[in-house]
Amino acid sequence: MYLVPALGLVGLLVMLVKSAWVTKQAAGNEKMTELAGYIADGAMSFLKAEWKVMSYFVVIAAILLAYSGTLVEHSSPVIAIAFIIGAILSALAGYIGMRIATKTNVRTTEAARTSLVQALKVSFTGGSVMGLGVAGLAVLGLGSLFIIFFNVFVPEGAAINGAEMKTAIEVLAGFSLGAESIALFARVGGGIYTKAADVGADLVGKVEAGIPEDDIRNPATIADNVGDNVGDVAGMGADLFGSYVATILATMVLGQEIDSADNFGGMAPILLPMVIAGLGLIFSIISMSLVRITKEDSSVQKALNFGNWSSMIFVVIASYPLSIWMLPETMELRGYEFTPLDVFYAILVGSIVGALMSWVTEFYTAMGKKPVNSIVQQSSTGHATNIIGGLAMGMQSTVIPILILAAGIIFSYSFAGLYGVAIAAAGMMATTAMQLAIDAFGPIADNAGGIAEMSGLPEEVRRRTDNLDAVGNTTAATGKGFAIASAALTALALFAAFVGIAGIDSIDIYKAPVLAMLFVGGMIPYIFSSLAIAAVGRAAMAMVHEVRRQFKEIPGIMEYKAKPEYEKCVEISTKASIREMMLPGAIALVTPLLVGFGFLGVFEETSSAEMLGGLLAGVTVSGVLMGIFQNNAGGAWDNAKKSFEAGVMIDGKMEYKGSEAHKASVTGDTVGDPFKDTSGPSMNILIKLMSIVSLVIAPHIHVGDVNANNNAYMDEIVKISAGEVYAYEGLNAAKVQFSSPNSEMTGDIKAEAFSYDFASEDNVVDFRMKLNSAETSGILKSQFRNVEVRAEELNRGEEGLFQGAAFIILDGNAIPAKLGISIVNEKKILASLSMD
Amino acid sequence: MYLVPALGLVGLLVMLVKSAWVTKQAAGNEKMTELAGYIADGAMSFLKAEWKVMSYFVVIAAILLAYSGTLVEHSSPVIAIAFIIGAILSALAGYIGMRIATKTNVRTTEAARTSLVQALKVSFTGGSVMGLGVAGLAVLGLGSLFIIFFNVFVPEGAAINGAEMKTAIEVLAGFSLGAESIALFARVGGGIYTKAADVGADLVGKVEAGIPEDDIRNPATIADNVGDNVGDVAGMGADLFGSYVATILATMVLGQEIDSADNFGGMAPILLPMVIAGLGLIFSIISMSLVRITKEDSSVQKALNFGNWSSMIFVVIASYPLSIWMLPETMELRGYEFTPLDVFYAILVGSIVGALMSWVTEFYTAMGKKPVNSIVQQSSTGHATNIIGGLAMGMQSTVIPILILAAGIIFSYSFAGLYGVAIAAAGMMATTAMQLAIDAFGPIADNAGGIAEMSGLPEEVRRRTDNLDAVGNTTAATGKGFAIASAALTALALFAAFVGIAGIDSIDIYKAPVLAMLFVGGMIPYIFSSLAIAAVGRAAMAMVHEVRRQFKEIPGIMEYKAKPEYEKCVEISTKASIREMMLPGAIALVTPLLVGFGFLGVFEETSSAEMLGGLLAGVTVSGVLMGIFQNNAGGAWDNAKKSFEAGVMIDGKMEYKGSEAHKASVTGDTVGDPFKDTSGPSMNILIKLMSIVSLVIAPHIHVGDVNANNNAYMDEIVKISAGEVYAYEGLNAAKVQFSSPNSEMTGDIKAEAFSYDFASEDNVVDFRMKLNSAETSGILKSQFRNVEVRAEELNRGEEGLFQGAAFIILDGNAIPAKLGISIVNEKKILASLSMD
Repeated sequence: MYLVPALGLVGLLVMLVKSAWVTKQAAGNEKMTELAGYIADGAMSFLKAEWKVMSYFVVIAAILLAYSGTLVEHSSPVIAIAFIIGAILSALAGYIGMRIATKTNVRTTEAARTSLVQALKVSFTGGSVMGLGVAGLAVLGLGSLFIIFFNVFVPEGAAINGAEMKTAIEVLAGFSLGAESIALFARVGGGIYTKAADVGADLVGKVEAGIPEDDIRNPATIADNVGDNVGDVAGMGADLFGSYVATILATMVLGQEIDSADNFGGMAPILLPMVIAGLGLIFSIISMSLVRITKEDSSVQKALNFGNWSSMIFVVIASYPLSIWMLPETMELRGYEFTPLDVFYAILVGSIVGALMSWVTEFYTAMGKKPVNSIVQQSSTGHATNIIGGLAMGMQSTVIPILILAAGIIFSYSFAGLYGVAIAAAGMMATTAMQLAIDAFGPIADNAGGIAEMSGLPEEVRRRTDNLDAVGNTTAATGKGFAIASAALTALALFAAFVGIAGIDSIDIYKAPVLAMLFVGGMIPYIFSSLAIAAVGRAAMAMVHEVRRQFKEIPGIMEYKAKPEYEKCVEISTKASIREMMLPGAIALVTPLLVGFGFLGVFEETSSAEMLGGLLAGVTVSGVLMGIFQNNAGGAWDNAKKSFEAGVMIDGKMEYKGSEAHKASVTGDTVGDPFKDTSGPSMNILIKLMSIVSLVIAPHIHVGDVNANNNAYMDEIVKISAGEVYAYEGLNAAKVQFSSPNSEMTGDIKAEAFSYDFASEDNVVDFRMKLNSAETSGILKSQFRNVEVRAEELNRGEEGLFQGAAFIILDGNAIPAKLGISIVNEKKILASLSMD
Repeated sequence: MYLVPALGLVGLLVMLVKSAWVTKQAAGNEKMTELAGYIADGAMSFLKAEWKVMSYFVVIAAILLAYSGTLVEHSSPVIAIAFIIGAILSALAGYIGMRIATKTNVRTTEAARTSLVQALKVSFTGGSVMGLGVAGLAVLGLGSLFIIFFNVFVPEGAAINGAEMKTAIEVLAGFSLGAESIALFARVGGGIYTKAADVGADLVGKVEAGIPEDDIRNPATIADNVGDNVGDVAGMGADLFGSYVATILATMVLGQEIDSADNFGGMAPILLPMVIAGLGLIFSIISMSLVRITKEDSSVQKALNFGNWSSMIFVVIASYPLSIWMLPETMELRGYEFTPLDVFYAILVGSIVGALMSWVTEFYTAMGKKPVNSIVQQSSTGHATNIIGGLAMGMQSTVIPILILAAGIIFSYSFAGLYGVAIAAAGMMATTAMQLAIDAFGPIADNAGGIAEMSGLPEEVRRRTDNLDAVGNTTAATGKGFAIASAALTALALFAAFVGIAGIDSIDIYKAPVLAMLFVGGMIPYIFSSLAIAAVGRAAMAMVHEVRRQFKEIPGIMEYKAKPEYEKCVEISTKASIREMMLPGAIALVTPLLVGFGFLGVFEETSSAEMLGGLLAGVTVSGVLMGIFQNNAGGAWDNAKKSFEAGVMIDGKMEYKGSEAHKASVTGDTVGDPFKDTSGPSMNILIKLMSIVSLVIAPHIHVGDVNANNNAYMDEIVKISAGEVYAYEGLNAAKVQFSSPNSEMTGDIKAEAFSYDFASEDNVVDFRMKLNSAETSGILKSQFRNVEVRAEELNRGEEGLFQGAAFIILDGNAIPAKLGISIVNEKKILASLSMD
């Protein structure tokens, strides 16, 4: 258990070493450092503004959480502390990334003056620092908090799948909630910032004033470069931190339900995802050292792919012995039995899904492939056909990913049930450090290019950074494919965790209120996207007006005589993005609360928890589709535009930059910008955040809440009569009737001897009783879901007879019961259960 | 029962009268009739080509259906005949509409030479002919087939909610399948045709050659006008015919399950939707006579609204006494009890939802309102911001309709269960004749304007037709809002009908395979839209090349010396649209088959029927969202462009046609064209068609299929032991145990005395036994779902004792059983059930 935070610490230490190395590199001439300083200051000022707003939110949310933690049994006010730590670490993850990115950018420019080899080394090391920081913080934070909460909440000897452990993990969900909330705001806010600055700078600078991109005369150019850092670096860092934590947490929640006879005190299924994450961190460190090129004309893409693939393969290979070693021979989760080998297969499925998703995304967004080329061709007949082509392509690009995802869900579930789905996602996310290193290096290279341009460095420097930047565009797209796939699996796992904690046993869309919520859920990604896209439009307009004003009111800008007021533009982007991120963020946070509490007890046949389940399913399906559609359409439009730089053949004629077709492709790119950098990548956070909010409120909308705190009452109303259970070979389930003074509460308990051995001398019977909840009616329904008789404490008598004390766990509360089992003969067990 | 086809006949007779009146009107000068002739010929040649392809499809599908009808019990080869009749009537509905539209267009032009009053009268009468034709055929066809199948399949005295009636209605589903299949192909094919011709004609004519719209020198101009008829008239006619039939059918399927003690032999819940449809037709005829204007400057919109509203209000008012008169005092459907008043409330809910949806759609797409204005403003900064604005607006416009829809589902369900949801949709659709008259008048006016332009008539003629055309644009948009809402409710009703016939009792998205199918289903509208949009792009390009060729190779076109080869362009549109409609159509038809049969028996815990249910839910939710998004975005872009005709104020400056902002708005309009006229309106057919296909295959993938044809086996394995049922006042349900030699098949039957009267001298007991399916296990599960003991034939003995023969319906098969009931005292009934 202590290994996990230790591995996290190792990651952070390596990060410090790498960070020190980057800092030691030369930062270039005075002009370069001055520009880099502006960018770093602008980025910090955004982060500070964001943090200020976020801190209000965190404090208020923490107070509400602490209060709510006192209300129900399976929670605790401590959840507020977990929430705050999650929020702070998430913000810290973004900060580390942005800090190192704003140092690395100028050093990459300087390195690019000498060689591509060196430029890649510097920029990728910068990316690695971020990757290790995010993953290290996640592993350390989650691992340590788990140990602390385990010690605080779970008394010695308590069952791992009992109520106390459930509370410990429910409290840990607060950590994930904190991380994911900050992630959403950081991603949306950063996304609005970067695209507002980008679009605004281009519209006035390139189009109206006719100056090139990244020209220092453009007042918005610093804001544009800041945007790369706050959106693509800090936003993405917080995003992946949140995703990483959510995925591991979802697996832990499900693992807690497994009754595991292992060597880790029954905790192996809970610890496994954390251990895999820890090892994934170490494998990422190893693989990072494999990313290098030796010559000026080596393929950067290949070097990155090599590192990426090797880290994934390491994780898959290591997870085989790990699963076999840690997990017990068989496990069962909600009636689904599986073995350690099945768990390994599920991890394998997850890795394959991740790899295929990246590959398909690359196909749909890479230059030179059919999809991008078809958009290029359609640019020849104007803006409209370019847009139609991109939209149609984006929609089409959902087909294969969805089929892959559906197959992934089915296979990972077939192998190891819901735990399989969760661990598949955890396996995919294990190499987050490496993924992030590859992702973060893109915007660093982009910035390096900007600095080169602004400082007027020679052409070859820009050429080298452009090489890195182009590779960065592809890795950004594939990273998004990976993120959306892991989000879908994680959401499903969180969904399952929610179902367990809310005490429902199905989400039946055949019920009208559930179907209605499926519609509402499906609509959320539309309104979220609409708000995000419209926000970019509005913020860009504000930027345009400011730049126009400066050109008009500050004389001498165009002649390099006066310095533009960069900070004004930075301020506009900052203010606009922080203002505009509020509403979409609020929708994601508040909708589950409205549905969960608003419909509490409204419908007799349908619980609000089940309706909330329908909402989550709608959000997940619609969000995944919108995410893939927007990311791929945006990526394809971008690269269709880039294709014109080298020239493209349309109707037998070569077309270059500046042609009418190129102008049409610029329109597509501008439309695609908010798609691919603001709303598209927010979808995966939206999905997960809504699931986590639901998970956190699950104990409050628990279906059987009426008596949840009232053991005495439960005890009183239920009498289990002396029903008899027969267990034969090949038939190990039968029924015990139970009844209560209140005649409505009659029903049957399905009894199941899940392990018995007649052949050996030493007769062993393990006994379990399960209530098929549909067999009862009224309020007892959910309380009975977890009835279980544990037979470990049975006295072993002579052959043919066991007699001993047992207890029934009613919704987590142990109630004494009497269980008599006698072995009549080799083929027959007779059991009786009674309570008094 | 015979009233329904009679009302249909009345509708068709009124249609003939109106049609004769239109034909009598003057058709204008020679030039006008020549042009109208080209349009009529082009439209006919498309219909012929479409019918040819469709006839292959219909024959093959009919053979497959006939064969499949022999395989299972609840079907019959007769379904193939129903299918063919449905297909033919659907095609006929389109034909009638197109025939009258191509006559009315030129007569409207001629009428517009005198006055607006007369022009509206002619064009609206043309629309009325179409509306009455479609609705009349639907009511007549459905009503007569129902009578025929009822007489063929249901022997005298058989229970209405028994197996025979189920077969009769399942066969009737073939009619709906035929209608909806043709509708999909007609809508998609017509949609591709009209937009390919429109976009193609504009790109070369307006942009390259610089000639105005509807100029006779443009070879594609006839194809463009033909497109209005085949897409907006014939396509829409087949669409609404299919929707109308599907909605009524869904209500009938659910009504069949209701055990109704009414004056119509238990058929009131089945007949009600047909009677409402018949009355709706009559009310539509009455309301049509209210649509008139008296002066040249009267508001056409108001006149149409007055007619529309009055027909809706008539239907709502009439449905109150109708429900009370026809329906029994209480009904029950799948455990949900409701009264005739509840049914009336559900109809009211449906009408309110329809009205609100139209109203919201109008808000989002009408000129002068905030959404369209914001797109106009965003056009000032270029093509990209116009597109972003339209996309964001379209996404945003899903919010309120989805909330209305969700509320509508919940309320109509709360009132009258699933029957309430279905009848709400049926109530909405009752005024289809009126709706369609209003919808069809738009393209007629559009064509009339085209003819006026091509024949060089005076300016004021064009002004009058433009007035009508503008109103037509708004009614088209609101009609689409109405259509999507009714489709969502109908799909839910079909969904419920599917669940019943497939023998499943829940669709649990918490099961991984079901969730996986929810993803796949959600993706279908994306690929469908992508194909439809891309098809328009490709077909438009082919048109562009042909027009360019004619301008080059036929000298003298531009000087009016040579006549362009109109028929070549017509042919291109025809061929392209028929080729391109195949794949999307096939996806809609084949996907349910693949899922239903492909996963049959694959997963132990999850039936393929349940997975198919997940697929349908995904398609419905995603399709409704995509439909609203595309229709509204397209409509808003169109009207944003139109706003420039009168001039708009942007940043304090007036902008008109020809400005840069206007050019950007034209881009938006072109992108929106396939959205709003091809893929968007196809969504509602896609949703319903997939549901109907599933409904038709439901008996084949029935969950308990193993023994479905094996009554003897069923009889043999189930023995109902002498269990005892006690029914007390206030507790009229108890349990009877049953068992079979195979020990797996033990279980309980819930017995329910649903009507008994102790107070009177004449003691009456109606007895029913229901199996809670979750209480059994294994393959008996679904067979038992409908266990019911009918006590009508019980001998009435002395007070205190009833003894007589009864039968148990096991999945539709009656099995003899012995039921003894004795009334012990006023408070207690003792019942025993046995089978041997």
